[in-house]
Amino acid sequence: MAAALELFSTRDAEDVSIDDVASAAGASRALVYHYFGGKQELYVAALRSAAEQLESRLRPHEGGRPLDELASGLKRYFDFVEEHAAGFAALLRGGPANRAGEVGEIVDGVRRRLFRLIQKQMRVEEPSPVLRTTLRSWIASVETAGLDWLEHRDVERPTLEKMLVDHMVALLGVAARYDGDVAGLLERLA
Amino acid sequence: MAAALELFSTRDAEDVSIDDVASAAGASRALVYHYFGGKQELYVAALRSAAEQLESRLRPHEGGRPLDELASGLKRYFDFVEEHAAGFAALLRGGPANRAGEVGEIVDGVRRRLFRLIQKQMRVEEPSPVLRTTLRSWIASVETAGLDWLEHRDVERPTLEKMLVDHMVALLGVAARYDGDVAGLLERLA
Repeated sequence: MAAALELFSTRDAEDVSIDDVASAAGASRALVYHYFGGKQELYVAALRSAAEQLESRLRPHEGGRPLDELASGLKRYFDFVEEHAAGFAALLRGGPANRAGEVGEIVDGVRRRLFRLIQKQMRVEEPSPVLRTTLRSWIASVETAGLDWLEHRDVERPTLEKMLVDHMVALLGVAARYDGDVAGLLERLA
Repeated sequence: MAAALELFSTRDAEDVSIDDVASAAGASRALVYHYFGGKQELYVAALRSAAEQLESRLRPHEGGRPLDELASGLKRYFDFVEEHAAGFAALLRGGPANRAGEVGEIVDGVRRRLFRLIQKQMRVEEPSPVLRTTLRSWIASVETAGLDWLEHRDVERPTLEKMLVDHMVALLGVAARYDGDVAGLLERLA
């Protein structure tokens, strides 16, 4: 599994063969087929393992101020993006050809759990529609900033991470103009 | 083609059969196969036609202030999202199972052309890295806001559209703190 994850992280899935995985793992092709059934299944298993890894890394260190926790979470998110560069880029570029597939489910699952994590960090019980849209938009913009960074690497990572925290504050500032609850949240965060 | 687009817009692609398309178009199943070759090809053709339709609708009415043009573009974008609800949601949810495929190419092409459209509206020749990241992030957040709106419809569309214009201004405000060129752009927009 570790070998497969490493390969899918550093190359496009299309350029990874069962033979590559078998040889990297020091196992036979037959054994890899036996355990996983095929390349698509192997990819899905690797993706699931990557998703779990990301989520366990993002589990908050307790007790910090929410915006500090956000900054430290973003740093760990970008560490992950950098380590799994090719796989991350391949996964998130374009649109899902097969959204009913397991791949789409895994990606959506990660997004939902990131949402709940941020919601928890901000001590929000039940996000209002405006706050929900705002947080989902921010998560999407972080994903895209990650993709853009992998493609260009012409902004320093610490700068980008800081800018994304500032984005969150700015977006909550907009949301506060539409929703009094968000205004209260923003005061608590400041 | 119009019949296929209509079906793919209002249902999940998996629930559309060649027979459905043939019957909606008043054509034989054999004729549909003859012209398109299969369901995947038909889906790609419908998607391409939808992308062209979206882009032609977003072509700016000339001479407005950039932020007014942005607001009017967002309105037309959400008109499109609403008309093609099921197809839009199915396309953008999840991650691409087949990003090398034509579907991913079409989605990425639309994003690239929206980027250039906004860049042109803002009279920016060559966006700096900070501005590029900011605009791409904003486009991603609009897509996600569209998806969220289709799922919940608990924010009024005009409110959401206005909030997204405010997002753009707020994000440019953040970017201006990192990049003097964006500060100049923001003054021109105000």
